[in-house]
Amino acid sequence: MNKLLVTSLALCATLGVTSKASADEGMWQPHQLPGIAKELKAAGLKLNPNDLTDLTGFPMGAIVSLGGCTASFLSDQGLVASNHHCVYGSVQYNSTEDNNLLKNGFLAKSFKDELPAAPGTRIYVTEEITEVTDKVNQSISATMKGADRYNTIDKNSKALVAECENDDRYRCSVVNFHGGLQYFLFKQLTIRDVRLVHAPASSIGKFGGDTDNWMWPRHTGDYGFYRAYVGKDGQPADYSKDNVPYKPKHHLKVSKASVKDGDFLMVVGYPGRTNRYRTALEVDNTFNWTYPNAKVLREDLINIIDSTTKPGSDEALAYASTRAGLANYAKNFGSMIESFQKGHLYDKKVELEKALNQWIAADNSRKQQYGQALSGLDKLIKQNIAHQERDLLLSYMGYSSLKSAAERLYRLSIEKTKADADRKRGYQERDMARFEQSMKTVERRYVAAVDKAFLKHLLGKYAKLPKEQRVASMGKYFGLEKGLNQAKLDKLLDKMYAKTELGSFEARKTWMDKSAADFERSKDPFIQLAVATYKDRKAMEDAAEELSGNIQAYRPKYMEALIAYYQGNNMPVYADANSTLRVTYGNVKGYSPKDGSYMKPFTTLQGIIEKYTGEGEFDSPQKQLDLIKAKQYGDYYSKELDSVPVNYLGTLDITGGNSGSPTLNDKAEFVGLAFDGVYESIIGDWDYDEKTNRSIHVDVKYMLWVMENVDGATNLIDEMDIVE
Amino acid sequence: MNKLLVTSLALCATLGVTSKASADEGMWQPHQLPGIAKELKAAGLKLNPNDLTDLTGFPMGAIVSLGGCTASFLSDQGLVASNHHCVYGSVQYNSTEDNNLLKNGFLAKSFKDELPAAPGTRIYVTEEITEVTDKVNQSISATMKGADRYNTIDKNSKALVAECENDDRYRCSVVNFHGGLQYFLFKQLTIRDVRLVHAPASSIGKFGGDTDNWMWPRHTGDYGFYRAYVGKDGQPADYSKDNVPYKPKHHLKVSKASVKDGDFLMVVGYPGRTNRYRTALEVDNTFNWTYPNAKVLREDLINIIDSTTKPGSDEALAYASTRAGLANYAKNFGSMIESFQKGHLYDKKVELEKALNQWIAADNSRKQQYGQALSGLDKLIKQNIAHQERDLLLSYMGYSSLKSAAERLYRLSIEKTKADADRKRGYQERDMARFEQSMKTVERRYVAAVDKAFLKHLLGKYAKLPKEQRVASMGKYFGLEKGLNQAKLDKLLDKMYAKTELGSFEARKTWMDKSAADFERSKDPFIQLAVATYKDRKAMEDAAEELSGNIQAYRPKYMEALIAYYQGNNMPVYADANSTLRVTYGNVKGYSPKDGSYMKPFTTLQGIIEKYTGEGEFDSPQKQLDLIKAKQYGDYYSKELDSVPVNYLGTLDITGGNSGSPTLNDKAEFVGLAFDGVYESIIGDWDYDEKTNRSIHVDVKYMLWVMENVDGATNLIDEMDIVE
Repeated sequence: MNKLLVTSLALCATLGVTSKASADEGMWQPHQLPGIAKELKAAGLKLNPNDLTDLTGFPMGAIVSLGGCTASFLSDQGLVASNHHCVYGSVQYNSTEDNNLLKNGFLAKSFKDELPAAPGTRIYVTEEITEVTDKVNQSISATMKGADRYNTIDKNSKALVAECENDDRYRCSVVNFHGGLQYFLFKQLTIRDVRLVHAPASSIGKFGGDTDNWMWPRHTGDYGFYRAYVGKDGQPADYSKDNVPYKPKHHLKVSKASVKDGDFLMVVGYPGRTNRYRTALEVDNTFNWTYPNAKVLREDLINIIDSTTKPGSDEALAYASTRAGLANYAKNFGSMIESFQKGHLYDKKVELEKALNQWIAADNSRKQQYGQALSGLDKLIKQNIAHQERDLLLSYMGYSSLKSAAERLYRLSIEKTKADADRKRGYQERDMARFEQSMKTVERRYVAAVDKAFLKHLLGKYAKLPKEQRVASMGKYFGLEKGLNQAKLDKLLDKMYAKTELGSFEARKTWMDKSAADFERSKDPFIQLAVATYKDRKAMEDAAEELSGNIQAYRPKYMEALIAYYQGNNMPVYADANSTLRVTYGNVKGYSPKDGSYMKPFTTLQGIIEKYTGEGEFDSPQKQLDLIKAKQYGDYYSKELDSVPVNYLGTLDITGGNSGSPTLNDKAEFVGLAFDGVYESIIGDWDYDEKTNRSIHVDVKYMLWVMENVDGATNLIDEMDIVE
Repeated sequence: MNKLLVTSLALCATLGVTSKASADEGMWQPHQLPGIAKELKAAGLKLNPNDLTDLTGFPMGAIVSLGGCTASFLSDQGLVASNHHCVYGSVQYNSTEDNNLLKNGFLAKSFKDELPAAPGTRIYVTEEITEVTDKVNQSISATMKGADRYNTIDKNSKALVAECENDDRYRCSVVNFHGGLQYFLFKQLTIRDVRLVHAPASSIGKFGGDTDNWMWPRHTGDYGFYRAYVGKDGQPADYSKDNVPYKPKHHLKVSKASVKDGDFLMVVGYPGRTNRYRTALEVDNTFNWTYPNAKVLREDLINIIDSTTKPGSDEALAYASTRAGLANYAKNFGSMIESFQKGHLYDKKVELEKALNQWIAADNSRKQQYGQALSGLDKLIKQNIAHQERDLLLSYMGYSSLKSAAERLYRLSIEKTKADADRKRGYQERDMARFEQSMKTVERRYVAAVDKAFLKHLLGKYAKLPKEQRVASMGKYFGLEKGLNQAKLDKLLDKMYAKTELGSFEARKTWMDKSAADFERSKDPFIQLAVATYKDRKAMEDAAEELSGNIQAYRPKYMEALIAYYQGNNMPVYADANSTLRVTYGNVKGYSPKDGSYMKPFTTLQGIIEKYTGEGEFDSPQKQLDLIKAKQYGDYYSKELDSVPVNYLGTLDITGGNSGSPTLNDKAEFVGLAFDGVYESIIGDWDYDEKTNRSIHVDVKYMLWVMENVDGATNLIDEMDIVE
């Protein structure tokens, strides 16, 4: 273990005992919680923070990952609650024209009525988190650079994963924290038989649709239920009708009282990715170049979908999900750019780096240790920026399903010739089920005319790249060396799409088993394209790994300096989100997005009536409307609101991946589900602002009110441990 | 005096003693205030309501009309405060390319620097209000109908006005209340020498522009100052440099402390027009036919302006004001339609009429007196609806400046042959200065290409009218009898606009003195059009007057029944706004336009920084931005807001015409200016909703802060009576 890392670990071990600079900021690793016990208690937590470090104890043992979403056990029969948008794929999968579950919702009144979730659906129960920094850094020297460093880390990590996955009930991963300053190994029990239990109609679960996405006031019943099944031996098993409900060691009690303005909240979940420790250069480049340009490309592709498909047609439906994803992040980037321009993120970064540099310069040993960290890191980042136009365009060409399928299939044929451990991530045996699934998914999400229009548009932009950024083999294949000849390109693309067989799943599946030589002999134009460009693409990948390896030598050093500086200034230190288990806490709280206005912390049933238009995103079941108009609030009435609460705001520090996270009260009882953040908090991934950073939650009262009164899901209510 | 009116007057004399059904609803006539003394005191008024009935006492003597706007005296030297948008015309009038007062603002540092206001600017000081119902109804019999009734009322009114205006310092008017149940004569001292004293830059006075119009949160410094001048004898006089400042008997003290959330507010002013007592049929027709169709026409004309003129060109500027007016009411109608669809106005009207009919039917004498009132009224309204498509199109053809100028000039030549008292309103000697002014105004607001495009578009729609609605002579002139022949119409219009001389003010002015025979001989195509269609237009006018006379026999009877019914049910009775002096009171109060959101009652300087973009509607003077950033709040700091308040919300019942009204505190001190209402209150003209009806005011603190710190208008601050 090298000196740098020892120091860094010593520093990290003390994380959390510093006072928090910004209230409620922080995505804490469970082991850090005892260090902020005082703050948790002051905020209102009634549990002992030490208990939260036990992943298999209460309440952590009740919280699981769906991979991309979070969920939790709400009964001793493996009943799992998450967001409607997290179980959406399974509802869609079971929908038919005659039995439109998306539209009508679904309720299994008994276990035997439960439906298989979409292929590939898994429930991951994190059982162990082990620090493996030493092991990952084995054989790494301080001077080691580039691909060497990259490959050594990669190899060490894969070995740790392989060892861990010897027990095939588990899925394991090695994840870096603080840009590589620390590594942890996550061991997750993987439940493979997952069944759909209940989802409300989309007019409840998606009420407000894209219009209300990231918006407040909000009235979305974004919840749904799975059930985990295992073999009769209690162990994970593939789907079988003989399987039995999984009996988790712990599940959450459900608080019918829910929460009120100001109450303590805690969210446990798997936040995806934040960028709170990026350098000023990275911030500047991301907000002034990447987001604006990516936003334009997304809007271009949306326009292509809209102009190539007829509204409501099968073609349009095939791209509905792609379009939603494009639009989602076009809006996200728009908000980021807007908040960035209004705010002071860049100025703060510049100031921080100035202060950091002064702090380093003030001490000789610090100077020696960290003097080159930031400048060295920024130098490497600039290398990456140099060809970012090309990289952005190539990455968006990934929206051509055929181009990327061909490239991945050819790569598979090459990787398969290697020993499993030496293969590139994504091409190992452990990845094959998901690989095949992804080849299958193309089926439902591909229309040749759209795929072609994407490629045509992006190649048109590609042709205008500065010469030094262009990829020789690709230019040659598409005849773009002398700039764009639109007619020629159109003709070539028409021919390619007419001739290729990769549009069919059978063909793609067949190619999964072929050799590189088979590919090289193929007459399929997309396979020819993949083969022709492989060397160049591999060279770019190698260069990226070389750069990545170099960055891996600098970023941890920079983070180490930054952490030491932060701690000296009593500023919070927690790692950026990286899809691993985190805890965030705060309160129910409104906010003021604009001078003169205030967003209340709760919405109510009345808002559904206000927004209701009877069509599209703002439709509602008639039964629900009637109940609201008749003020049939039942057990879920809130006196303060004179109605039933629907959604509420919290100050919690969450991001994508927290979707479906249970929201817990001071006793770790279930009081709702995190499902979104407000528009002003989108930039929170880079910069948490306590004034405007608000998480959005479905109120458990609304869930229960709809389940009981609209959907009649009393069997599930009976199954839960409901407390007053 | 007929029995009906005696009864009605007896009823009206008791108005105001009933308790108010909806808090803060009501535009009260000053003489009604003692009747609601208890409510005024409970709301917080510290003055004796009896004092408010004295028009020449304090505070009423300090409040004046600008004709279309309200204003008030703020010093004993005739300093008058109103809205920026009320003095806008005078700022524009004095602006040149080199000295852009609109952009830069204007401040006279001494009396001699003050500039003449735009031609026609007047300050009206209401000195007497006399009920003249008996006199107006002289010689009217209960059975008299149609044009007879209309003309008798018209003649009696004109005689009262002429008698009153014998003293040429006064302008007088007879105004009907409750649809003709009562008439009052208003006698207003008319100050003709009005000078511009101060207006902030448009980037303050119009901050937020059309985007923020009718919106909250709001940050508009909508204030400006005139000064009233009179001859050395103290009497109204035409402009002369020898004139001296008018010394009003009363002026308002200015409260530097302004108001806080919940404080009492009172607004005195001249609200233009409300429709709170219309029948269900009128409501249905207005919201389901008139507003939607008028909105479309307005949007059509806006599109024509935008597609016919280049942004920023002289042509575009000529239509800037017309476009703003079109857009303003397109937005207004949009809000009305939206609120109507969400609300229950129509249902409430139907319910009210049902209850009213039951109440009438329950008593034989009521049945006899009122039994036919509503059904008779609705029958007449239906007659009007029968040709409303035609009427709407013809009224929008008024946007063709040439067509309407020609028609008005020809009509003038006909009216001039009559004795002054017999002439139609608008064509009497007293109207001639304004008539000439309106002919002049065309100069700045006319571009042939746009005028032609308007006419072409509207004629295209006209050609599609049902045959029975078309006007024979007009169809003949434009060759539309057999439907639209676009090419032919285009050619004709091209020729008309090429040949007419009415585009020049000189020509229009010359035609003001010509005889009808001169018109009939003219070769000018627009004059020929006016002559050719005169008979048909006169016939439509006669029919309208016949109908109006008939309605005048029914509407007062309906109102009398309604008032008696309301009073029996303790519901508020005040007359619809009719541009006469009214008092409304209430409180500073936020509101909740949507479930989950709340609009705070105050905005602050920080909101200006938030909205600032540096261009267009959201620009601000650099000096102001610097002061805000440096938190230079000076004497105008509000501890509650930790800033200087900019605008605030009140529950006052105001409408167009209240613009510029002083907002008074419990001691009738000046605490700001009413200048707008929120979007949700636009439908308030038909239906006051205490939950969402909010007036918007400039806070006096913001006025003084900008005047002192940004514009250096300390001479004006020194001139006012400022109290803590």
